[in-house]
Amino acid sequence: MAAFDFTPLLPAGLPPAALKWTGSPKYNFTGGNNDPEQVPLDGLVAAADAVLRREGRSLAYYGVANGPQGYKPLRDFLAAKLKRDAGIDCTADDVLLVSGSLQAFDLINGALLAPGDTVIVERDTYQGMLTRYARAGVNAVGIPLDEGGLRMDALEETLDALKAKGIRPKYIYTIPTVQNPTGTIMPMERRRQLLALSEKFGVPIFEDDCYSDLIWSGERPPALYTMSTSGNVIHIGSFSKSIAPALRVGFIVAPWPILSRMIALKVDAGSGALEQMVLAEYCAPHFETHVPALRAGLRRKLEALMSALDEQFGTAAEFDDPPGGIFLWVKLPDQVDTMKLYQSALAAGVAINPGPEWSTDAAHSRSRMRLCFASPTVEEIREGIAILADICRKEFGVPERSGNVERRARP
Amino acid sequence: MAAFDFTPLLPAGLPPAALKWTGSPKYNFTGGNNDPEQVPLDGLVAAADAVLRREGRSLAYYGVANGPQGYKPLRDFLAAKLKRDAGIDCTADDVLLVSGSLQAFDLINGALLAPGDTVIVERDTYQGMLTRYARAGVNAVGIPLDEGGLRMDALEETLDALKAKGIRPKYIYTIPTVQNPTGTIMPMERRRQLLALSEKFGVPIFEDDCYSDLIWSGERPPALYTMSTSGNVIHIGSFSKSIAPALRVGFIVAPWPILSRMIALKVDAGSGALEQMVLAEYCAPHFETHVPALRAGLRRKLEALMSALDEQFGTAAEFDDPPGGIFLWVKLPDQVDTMKLYQSALAAGVAINPGPEWSTDAAHSRSRMRLCFASPTVEEIREGIAILADICRKEFGVPERSGNVERRARP
Repeated sequence: MAAFDFTPLLPAGLPPAALKWTGSPKYNFTGGNNDPEQVPLDGLVAAADAVLRREGRSLAYYGVANGPQGYKPLRDFLAAKLKRDAGIDCTADDVLLVSGSLQAFDLINGALLAPGDTVIVERDTYQGMLTRYARAGVNAVGIPLDEGGLRMDALEETLDALKAKGIRPKYIYTIPTVQNPTGTIMPMERRRQLLALSEKFGVPIFEDDCYSDLIWSGERPPALYTMSTSGNVIHIGSFSKSIAPALRVGFIVAPWPILSRMIALKVDAGSGALEQMVLAEYCAPHFETHVPALRAGLRRKLEALMSALDEQFGTAAEFDDPPGGIFLWVKLPDQVDTMKLYQSALAAGVAINPGPEWSTDAAHSRSRMRLCFASPTVEEIREGIAILADICRKEFGVPERSGNVERRARP
Repeated sequence: MAAFDFTPLLPAGLPPAALKWTGSPKYNFTGGNNDPEQVPLDGLVAAADAVLRREGRSLAYYGVANGPQGYKPLRDFLAAKLKRDAGIDCTADDVLLVSGSLQAFDLINGALLAPGDTVIVERDTYQGMLTRYARAGVNAVGIPLDEGGLRMDALEETLDALKAKGIRPKYIYTIPTVQNPTGTIMPMERRRQLLALSEKFGVPIFEDDCYSDLIWSGERPPALYTMSTSGNVIHIGSFSKSIAPALRVGFIVAPWPILSRMIALKVDAGSGALEQMVLAEYCAPHFETHVPALRAGLRRKLEALMSALDEQFGTAAEFDDPPGGIFLWVKLPDQVDTMKLYQSALAAGVAINPGPEWSTDAAHSRSRMRLCFASPTVEEIREGIAILADICRKEFGVPERSGNVERRARP
């Protein structure tokens, strides 16, 4: 019998069909992958053993009978951690555990956005959010960034202009603490200005705080959520960057009037309980010692990446040494189209994030790229950047071949 | 400062805000919870230990670098299991692992449904699907069931009538093997008829196979997916009923032209990998011995429930002894409104599923209820049904007080 044809049944606006997966690129500078050597294996093994023996029978109940907000001991851990690190005064009742911060995106967007709505975002921002807006028919207005993150003059101007057109944006999406992809940390004074603008225009703030554990100095400013006096901030975070991304556990902290809307939209019968249980068991005693060691390892990889870029690209690669995180935002010479570079590099086994996929402004980001450094080894970083420089040189004539490169024994 | 008001920002059509969770009812006959005594604790502990020690470092990669379809060893296990049990001839490439069968619902609906669309469902069916249709603005047309499940005469009549109106339903959603909530198993001949009608009208079949491991006899008919010769069936299943529901792991088996659409919609950076890894490690050697023991325990609980109903309700509770599963579909006398009974029972600590929430036909299901028996103990089943009978008697005058009840020492 002829194969059944699903095509006439597909609704309008679907994304293109997925291609068959063909494996990971050899030199992978994309994605929020972490350092495999830094997964706290012994600790996770011991935690899984202890929590399963003690509470494993409760896996027979959806959400281990802890209600729709998730495993209570992990929410308790988070309330204590957020108080200690970010100054957030909350209890387990204010926390919703979710299947990674991406489910947080979907629940927040579900509770606030409809097609045709407008949101404010940082001009350069997380690709997965931009693709969500495109799919949802939501207009994302990008605000330029500088070394302190979101520019307040540009934000106020945009809010004024939108207001004049009768448009009230649904929220301001910001990654104020190790911005993705630019790596900036918003200073205190600007945080105050941002909160004041949010109040003035009645536009809440969506604070994405996924990278704040990974600041080299170990010191972070208080969260916007902490500084808010009116409950105008929705705060999200994740264990993907601090423990392991394949454990899909993120969280939302938000005022009940809006958190209760998200819980109502979370019709998945709970996020994975075993992962929540293992995380709670591991993190309560070990998080504070694990994270500084992780940061030190990430810093070493960042230094390897910056050295490799200096060596292979010279002045053709411009970047700021970021105060933390897992990525570097690199500006190449204007003639480089990173969408094209992406294609050629991938064919050679080197994966990068081309700037235009991480920005509302394709012209501004045309010659920029995001390089993630947490998961490749130092040797892979060196080899991958050398290959990338070769490809870039062949395609765009930059970087010019330098003395450094000539002298170096290539792998 | 006054509390920020999110109300003006909420889009139209949101579900009502969630209420604060206040704990589980003492006698819980709702939800797909399982028997805590039957969680294979030692096996899961050993599996977690082995797989974490061997492969735990791969948690540093999204989806443990197994691509968007999920952990390959679990897909391999499923391909072998589905071949053995359901006759399905597939490979790991045909399987998409998801965060519980509810994510399967969302991906299938996302790939096929738009507001205003029509789907065909069993008149009495899974509540979580009906609420999804309501939220999505999709018209669910219910087809009556009998002791063989979906009635083919009624289905053909409905498909004809819809065709005459120019309506092509997007799919036929069916639970052919231990139907939820009626417990029926569709006979072979009817499966053939269903496949033929699907072909004739160009309407694919959405086969929900979540309960087929729990047939007392251990013997099941081949899946509709197996019997299809044209690839017109999307098949889903879950580990919630066979292992533990708090592990959020389900799966989709579907022809690539439609599976690739679902993968494109799965923008969650992977489902929880630890749970997939532990399941694969546990199930490959133990699934075939675990499930028969689980079934025997569930059957004992079902017998306790049927005895308690006989004893407390007498002829006022009508039901068929189901061939498997975790629920009983009970008809009470016509004067009983189970939506009201649900409220009064809940106040007394007894949770039931009222019929109208599990049916497209509120009149037909008005006096029906679904009772889940897997998670309460035998003693809780006896006590809970006694309390339920008391409440039902007070509110609706039935069951009449019987000799059995008079004689029995009440807990």
